[in-house]
Amino acid sequence: MFIKTGNLPQKELANGVTAGVAWGENLMLSFVKLNPNTTVPLHKHPHEQMGLVLSGKLKHIIANESRLLKEGDAYLVPSGVEHGAENLESETRVLDIFSPPRDDYK
Amino acid sequence: MFIKTGNLPQKELANGVTAGVAWGENLMLSFVKLNPNTTVPLHKHPHEQMGLVLSGKLKHIIANESRLLKEGDAYLVPSGVEHGAENLESETRVLDIFSPPRDDYK
Repeated sequence: MFIKTGNLPQKELANGVTAGVAWGENLMLSFVKLNPNTTVPLHKHPHEQMGLVLSGKLKHIIANESRLLKEGDAYLVPSGVEHGAENLESETRVLDIFSPPRDDYK
Repeated sequence: MFIKTGNLPQKELANGVTAGVAWGENLMLSFVKLNPNTTVPLHKHPHEQMGLVLSGKLKHIIANESRLLKEGDAYLVPSGVEHGAENLESETRVLDIFSPPRDDYK
């Protein structure tokens, strides 16, 4: 199946943070756009998560480590580990990947 | 865990096609670089696969459908479905995602 990511319906994840989501049986891709100066509050879930910064930069927090990430930087959030993000002055685009797919994003 | 994708060890997937790979328990990310005029022959595997074109463009074949994909285009290859790719004149970068992780890529 081919997916035009720009055409995916948008879901609001947090204030000023939206995503278009596509999934299969085991995998879910969430194409996230963070407006300038927005925050994804610390949270956790049983789904394993990996991600990639597609454009822009943002501060990413995993467990008790924080890092400024830019285009091409990736991350792994193991099941149940607390994480969050703080975007800076520019718009940032991130691909978040979950396995299994998150029911609350479908 | 934070991942510098440019620092991942490179594995040759096909002639002129290399990848840096990172994985967790359920997820595997494969950052693929296809040199100009290279081919990933048709193949299949039990692992579900999704992917995203990061830069460049290539012809992607899934089952009996073929599509010219460019940056921002994504795809889903269900478990066991035959697929492959033909790169064109330019270098192309693709993120391939597998669940479960592929043992042959570790």
